[in-house]
Amino acid sequence: MRKVAIIGVGNSKFGNRNDVNMAELAFEAVQPSLVDAGISAKEVEFVALGSVGAGAWYEELLPAVVASEYCGLTKAGLVRCEAACASGSAAFQTAYATVASGQAEIAMALGVEKMREIDSPIAMEWIGRAGYYLWEFHNFGITFPGYYALHANAHMAKYGTTEEDLALVAVKNHKYGSMNPKAHLQNKITVDDVLSSMVIASPLKLFDCCPLTDGSASVILASEEKVKELKIETPVWVAGIGYSSGTANLTKRADFVGLEASVLASQRAYKAAGVTADQIEVAEVHDCFTIAEIMAYEDIGLCRKGEGVKLLREGQTEIGGKIPVNVDGGLKAKGHPVGTTGCSMIYELTRQLREEVEKPRQVPLKNYIALAHNVGGTGHYCYVTILRR
Amino acid sequence: MRKVAIIGVGNSKFGNRNDVNMAELAFEAVQPSLVDAGISAKEVEFVALGSVGAGAWYEELLPAVVASEYCGLTKAGLVRCEAACASGSAAFQTAYATVASGQAEIAMALGVEKMREIDSPIAMEWIGRAGYYLWEFHNFGITFPGYYALHANAHMAKYGTTEEDLALVAVKNHKYGSMNPKAHLQNKITVDDVLSSMVIASPLKLFDCCPLTDGSASVILASEEKVKELKIETPVWVAGIGYSSGTANLTKRADFVGLEASVLASQRAYKAAGVTADQIEVAEVHDCFTIAEIMAYEDIGLCRKGEGVKLLREGQTEIGGKIPVNVDGGLKAKGHPVGTTGCSMIYELTRQLREEVEKPRQVPLKNYIALAHNVGGTGHYCYVTILRR
Repeated sequence: MRKVAIIGVGNSKFGNRNDVNMAELAFEAVQPSLVDAGISAKEVEFVALGSVGAGAWYEELLPAVVASEYCGLTKAGLVRCEAACASGSAAFQTAYATVASGQAEIAMALGVEKMREIDSPIAMEWIGRAGYYLWEFHNFGITFPGYYALHANAHMAKYGTTEEDLALVAVKNHKYGSMNPKAHLQNKITVDDVLSSMVIASPLKLFDCCPLTDGSASVILASEEKVKELKIETPVWVAGIGYSSGTANLTKRADFVGLEASVLASQRAYKAAGVTADQIEVAEVHDCFTIAEIMAYEDIGLCRKGEGVKLLREGQTEIGGKIPVNVDGGLKAKGHPVGTTGCSMIYELTRQLREEVEKPRQVPLKNYIALAHNVGGTGHYCYVTILRR
Repeated sequence: MRKVAIIGVGNSKFGNRNDVNMAELAFEAVQPSLVDAGISAKEVEFVALGSVGAGAWYEELLPAVVASEYCGLTKAGLVRCEAACASGSAAFQTAYATVASGQAEIAMALGVEKMREIDSPIAMEWIGRAGYYLWEFHNFGITFPGYYALHANAHMAKYGTTEEDLALVAVKNHKYGSMNPKAHLQNKITVDDVLSSMVIASPLKLFDCCPLTDGSASVILASEEKVKELKIETPVWVAGIGYSSGTANLTKRADFVGLEASVLASQRAYKAAGVTADQIEVAEVHDCFTIAEIMAYEDIGLCRKGEGVKLLREGQTEIGGKIPVNVDGGLKAKGHPVGTTGCSMIYELTRQLREEVEKPRQVPLKNYIALAHNVGGTGHYCYVTILRR
């Protein structure tokens, strides 16, 4: 297997981006990533674009060619990758494999999503289709807050997790979001703010849920030879990727206190990278709802099953703690443009590993190993990516 | 680069498949491909699903997880690949790269498309969005027969191609479709049938256009080590893949007599495979409209530019000729379930290289080298795959 490094990253401002169209939004990530890598668009041989809402949240049914052309990437090989909310990671995996297999020397993973061109109820309907469409969505109308409320209730019943615990995730992630100029939500909040916010699907309240966000992120990957040729100062190496899918049919799940796909994908990623969970120094996990972050701690082995809340209460997932998580604000505060999120996680971790994040958000590092955990659906897809400087 | 082989293929009956849903249709390809490879679904580590019409032609927005679960593939890594009508080839490339990079030993490329659940005008609208959405589709309402009519008129003006020449493509491909039990259209037609059929977008008539088709195709790929371990009798090796994208904006094209993306992708594929065009013994090319097949001959170097019609008139692209093309009926008669086509081309070529096609359609082989050419949009994407026994 050829060694592959990240040589450039870019991330647009996340938020309500009705000021730009899909291709213009893509450009806001692509351009800085090219500058960061010190290459021109013409040098990119393959582009994997992560996007879900084509023809749903925004009108372009086939966004890859329009976005890549607008960014000057025409003539590169091109594919759109979709794995629900893990699409950005799926695009990253495809771009990685294309370089690692020897097919290309430079490839780009580009996430772009516009979710706010249409009304929220319609967006929620589309997201709901990412569950088990034929049975759960079509017959019962369940949408995503409902799915994760099932998980939250199960976790509370089994492990004594409280609504205050869930709120702690939101408080932490909004704190870091307030320090991140790219974040969608930049307001600090308190536990009381969360508890007193509108109930969406009990026990989840408004501030337990991530927002609908527009945004883009770009990651440029290169072979080891190319890294040398370009004299990249601080390449960030892809140490290993793990992936899994899980049943889309909730009635077939063994339990609701975690996601089997997360467990499997992380185990595979650790094996591929040859590292253990306790070597990870900074992590991005999929906190589409507050309960999801707690389950992720447990599923990817940052702690034992049922001890996620302890980690949280002790502040171990904040900067200064054992394993800082989502210090860019996470999906919860930075925002969750679904096809983009996986690439945006890699953007943040690359900058962390290069120690170039604005001071209060930079995690102190010793081993320089980072992990991104990205879920599609409620564990229908999972990608875990481990990076190493 | 690790060597990767095709070890199993499957293809559903193409046609109007309102008798099955999307997942059931996928199963009709997956199951025979597993039997063909002699493996169980649990051995597949990664699945790349090619499909375009999710949420458009059929209701599942996120088909990969539903289709793979129905086929027993849960726990495999999973992604949907979309590159318009080249989505099947894009899925094949992703599955190939995942094995070639050393990430997986066995991966599957699965194409599935249901295009006939909705009315044809709506299907045509969705396909039209695969052009340049913002300008050409939205402002002028151009759909695909119109795009390819531009190409046909340009080719006729420059090279003296006639409407009868275009008809010859349809006659040839219907002839082979009539011998292929998987084909959507199995009726033989004459030049007169084509010329007297309804004008769709002059000079293209009904029989110059491929049908809207439901269908699925599955291709299982394995590493060289796995091929040995499984004692695969006749592995078909992936010799090389070439890809390119082209401008989505027709006003930026240098001319309309060919597709630059096809030229580039084929040159890259020949280079990757280390073969020349004259070594190819059987080819599948993207004949969504009759003119597209003639342009493909020229663009991928089966003849010089402007000499495609000569090749056709001489019968060189029929069995017995220099380079038989689309002897499964092609998109024109076998049908064109857009996300499936790339995988279905590989299905046909694999069986040709193994010399297991029903007698009159089996191409006599000496070098055992085959080529699949798959276009998305009007050259917005192109993938060329070269196989070798």
